[in-house]
Amino acid sequence: MSLNYKKIMRSIKGASIPKPISGTLSGHAAGEPFDKLVYNEIKKQVPKNTFRQYEFLNDLYSKNPNVIGFEKRLALFNSPTVLFLLSRGKNATDKWSIENPFDEKQNDTADILVVKDNFYEIIDIKTRNISKSAQPPNIISAYKLAQVCAKMLDNKEFDNFTINYFEIDWQLEKNKLVCHDTHFACLFKAQPSDLYINWAASMQIQFHACNLPQNFNGTMQSWAKEYLKHFVAQAKKRADDMVKKFVKPFEKYIK
Amino acid sequence: MSLNYKKIMRSIKGASIPKPISGTLSGHAAGEPFDKLVYNEIKKQVPKNTFRQYEFLNDLYSKNPNVIGFEKRLALFNSPTVLFLLSRGKNATDKWSIENPFDEKQNDTADILVVKDNFYEIIDIKTRNISKSAQPPNIISAYKLAQVCAKMLDNKEFDNFTINYFEIDWQLEKNKLVCHDTHFACLFKAQPSDLYINWAASMQIQFHACNLPQNFNGTMQSWAKEYLKHFVAQAKKRADDMVKKFVKPFEKYIK
Repeated sequence: MSLNYKKIMRSIKGASIPKPISGTLSGHAAGEPFDKLVYNEIKKQVPKNTFRQYEFLNDLYSKNPNVIGFEKRLALFNSPTVLFLLSRGKNATDKWSIENPFDEKQNDTADILVVKDNFYEIIDIKTRNISKSAQPPNIISAYKLAQVCAKMLDNKEFDNFTINYFEIDWQLEKNKLVCHDTHFACLFKAQPSDLYINWAASMQIQFHACNLPQNFNGTMQSWAKEYLKHFVAQAKKRADDMVKKFVKPFEKYIK
Repeated sequence: MSLNYKKIMRSIKGASIPKPISGTLSGHAAGEPFDKLVYNEIKKQVPKNTFRQYEFLNDLYSKNPNVIGFEKRLALFNSPTVLFLLSRGKNATDKWSIENPFDEKQNDTADILVVKDNFYEIIDIKTRNISKSAQPPNIISAYKLAQVCAKMLDNKEFDNFTINYFEIDWQLEKNKLVCHDTHFACLFKAQPSDLYINWAASMQIQFHACNLPQNFNGTMQSWAKEYLKHFVAQAKKRADDMVKKFVKPFEKYIK
């Protein structure tokens, strides 16, 4: 890990931002300014290595102006797993040019990306209004994560990336949103079997970073295997549950 | 059907509302003022019979001040199917009083309810920004609808309610949102087998009212049976697809 997260957490805790003009205070409206604070703090530590996901892609393709087209641009990634996590689709990648660079995209994997010595640190910022009790946020598609784990195992890539979550707990005070606390969690330090998959909500893994136990001590290789065991068992269970809940009770009506 | 929908559509088409202050023009922000226009038009036709869903419940419970508690309040509905569609949960119903009435709730079934001669017409307003291509909106949970159909068949209730969708197509013009077109569709005039169930999106049935064929000519009883056939077949298919897509490809990694 190349970042001093304790230092970042110290700088953010207690920080405040003006209340956004839009009255709703939705997660998104409040999230963006806090996200920028974290980005700036990280950039202070590793200025040359800090990117937005789209910035990184624009940077990579700009430095290789003669590499054109989807397949060749993908080959610029030195890792199939990181490629899968960070690249855009075929159509968008084909159309990319210095005059037509990528812009931010809401469902990009990383809010912030720190790339150093061929190691990719993917950071996702989760902001949380602590005056409301809300269900845990969407973290990542359980299916996408299964595909990531399969790629790790296929390509024996166990030490070139990580995925970290940074939670900012804030509250409205007068006309400001004040950060009361921050939390940090590494996805690969969680027990795979602890990850809750909400199948009805686009198969999203959901958790609050502050509640994610960080007691997995195995290798990334064993994490990937454990996760796939969990995912397959949960998918089987969900398929069985669907038959129990949505098929059996209604069969008597359609005979 | 107690309403003259053609008349309502004529009044709404061409109508405009001021652009909401919130810059996002999200479905919700634009939807509310158009929804009010429709409500007012319906209220002109049947003033004593037009309700918001929460207004209807407040009205029903207020007229029966000595009926207290969940079970007894539910008994005020003369139809188990309508009860299932319109009532609130046990906790909220227990707590209801004239001093503590229900307020609007986002996932209520009906935007507007017309109740006349023991017939319940449930109306859902769908607003659509036609300058954006968007996926069809969430209509109703496919599971909830299956439960409704089972209740219809259990209680032989085939002629005391309907569910209608009213689509308002609008576009931003200068500082106004202008209604360019309106569409009307009755759920029970659609072929049940045409209904698309998005399992990953909370099992929602999704369609644009303007695209919903209205060529089902059978009875409500046969509609309920046909729908349950469709729902059960789709649930089985989804369970099979889950095993194919989420179990089989990953089994080799976990042996």
